[in-house]
Amino acid sequence: MTPEPAALVAAARGGDRSALARLLSLVERGGSQAQEVGRLCHPLGGSAYTVGITGAPGSGKSTLTSGLVSSLRRRGGGRLAVLAVDPSSPFSGGAILGDRVRMSDHVLDRDVFIRSMATRGHLGGLALATPQAVRVLDAVGVAWVVVETVGVGQVEVEIVAAADTTVVVVNPGWGDAVQANKAGLMEIADLFVINKADRPGAAETRRDLEQMLDLSGLADWRPAILETVATEGTGVEEIAEAIDRHRTWLTESGRLVVKREERLRVELALIVTERLRRRADAMLGEAGRDRLDAAVVGRDIDPWSAADQVLAGIDA
Amino acid sequence: MTPEPAALVAAARGGDRSALARLLSLVERGGSQAQEVGRLCHPLGGSAYTVGITGAPGSGKSTLTSGLVSSLRRRGGGRLAVLAVDPSSPFSGGAILGDRVRMSDHVLDRDVFIRSMATRGHLGGLALATPQAVRVLDAVGVAWVVVETVGVGQVEVEIVAAADTTVVVVNPGWGDAVQANKAGLMEIADLFVINKADRPGAAETRRDLEQMLDLSGLADWRPAILETVATEGTGVEEIAEAIDRHRTWLTESGRLVVKREERLRVELALIVTERLRRRADAMLGEAGRDRLDAAVVGRDIDPWSAADQVLAGIDA
Repeated sequence: MTPEPAALVAAARGGDRSALARLLSLVERGGSQAQEVGRLCHPLGGSAYTVGITGAPGSGKSTLTSGLVSSLRRRGGGRLAVLAVDPSSPFSGGAILGDRVRMSDHVLDRDVFIRSMATRGHLGGLALATPQAVRVLDAVGVAWVVVETVGVGQVEVEIVAAADTTVVVVNPGWGDAVQANKAGLMEIADLFVINKADRPGAAETRRDLEQMLDLSGLADWRPAILETVATEGTGVEEIAEAIDRHRTWLTESGRLVVKREERLRVELALIVTERLRRRADAMLGEAGRDRLDAAVVGRDIDPWSAADQVLAGIDA
Repeated sequence: MTPEPAALVAAARGGDRSALARLLSLVERGGSQAQEVGRLCHPLGGSAYTVGITGAPGSGKSTLTSGLVSSLRRRGGGRLAVLAVDPSSPFSGGAILGDRVRMSDHVLDRDVFIRSMATRGHLGGLALATPQAVRVLDAVGVAWVVVETVGVGQVEVEIVAAADTTVVVVNPGWGDAVQANKAGLMEIADLFVINKADRPGAAETRRDLEQMLDLSGLADWRPAILETVATEGTGVEEIAEAIDRHRTWLTESGRLVVKREERLRVELALIVTERLRRRADAMLGEAGRDRLDAAVVGRDIDPWSAADQVLAGIDA
């Protein structure tokens, strides 16, 4: 009963929100239809600008995202989509309840499209599905895609790597957490936001971040550090301005093109890895797999020799 | 100059800590020597018990880990190792500074071995390296391996999946975070610890967790919920007791064997996928890859068709 991907793409480009929602569901589900959607959308895009927002649970990044959406809407500049990506529920496929609630300011705005995504399977599922979703939104004419994700772990980093500008949200009193994640934060942040800046410790957090930036030997772009109280709207307007400055720098320096090329390279590598994984599963098959598993479990054979046997099939 | 893996394994089994450290470095680095270490260690293990401890940055899990190590040492029960796994610094390969500092109580204990691990490469590197490190520790006669990792994201879940008993650390006032991560938490936790339980909101957090457990329809094992103030040592002793209860249940129900078999199956699949990935890289070579990348970036070809071309070599 579901229309073909091509019909859905045409309808979504014409402004049909439910067609867009269906396309994103196909993409999230993965498999051959997701691939078909990607093939159709790949030549159509290239003009959307993506902003990644990441931070630990409770840092207030959903409230900030909502505020940023309001800023961007006030400035005009076209249709906008929010992808709330949740890598922390790998098993349920559930949505981020809190985020949906906080985004309720925008549900009546026809030019704002909000979508939660959660992984439905193996490691790497969201890292594959997120750029795909951005591609769809880009192809149907969305001008701004805000990708919000929880945490600054490895998967989250891969997810925000799909963004042109990445905003990292921290809170006062996060000395240890900032310290522990230093390298990861420095690598991905184009802009730091100290949210809940009315709490004690904001100045120390700023000093910690400045020190890190001083020591990191950044070549050309030094991330700004903003202070906000998102629940009161304080400082939120400045985020959109800082994003604009980064966008201008990226564009004028030629880095935007390089960044997007690199993103496509990473995506190609992920697609290849994913296919190889499926192929390995198929090769292991059921019967052979049981036999090998039993041997490995019984310590009659080590996992590497078992892998040799599995792969011997390819060369035969 | 480095001794052969076989000589290192023999030395480490004889109690040589620097040989053990070298083996773990080989394993972390991956490649053929890591594989050789795995082959040597696989038949020698099977008696170590592994405990995973995970929680967001700042939850106090390093202090809890340190306290748990003290409890386990007081009870006797053999040599102990802590693997502090940091998936949040994907780029630096750096160690977790804070964790090292907090574990300083144990650095003079010859029967406690502490090691930080960070990924040095692609996604999945730690998911491969962690069970390998556990295998080495097991083979050299370590009785308890405590695997501590930051966060409850997807990679972290794969890492703690290497554990027999998994402890999830939360804090009072984490209503939203707990809510958002509900499914992931339920799936991995064998035991919940509400740390910083002297802060407001501990009772509500307990109630939230109990409700989730009520609704989750757990078949047989219901995770206990403990309250601790790790910095004062309050409640920490009970963690070791709760782990013992879970261990007894796993052993008597036959689940421990099933869990470990499943772990080896997952590891075999990861090894096969990783080898296929390397094979695809080799087949494509640099020239071929650059050509395909350029075509994808220029939108002359979509990433899926490019992946077809990469994989065509395997079938040829």
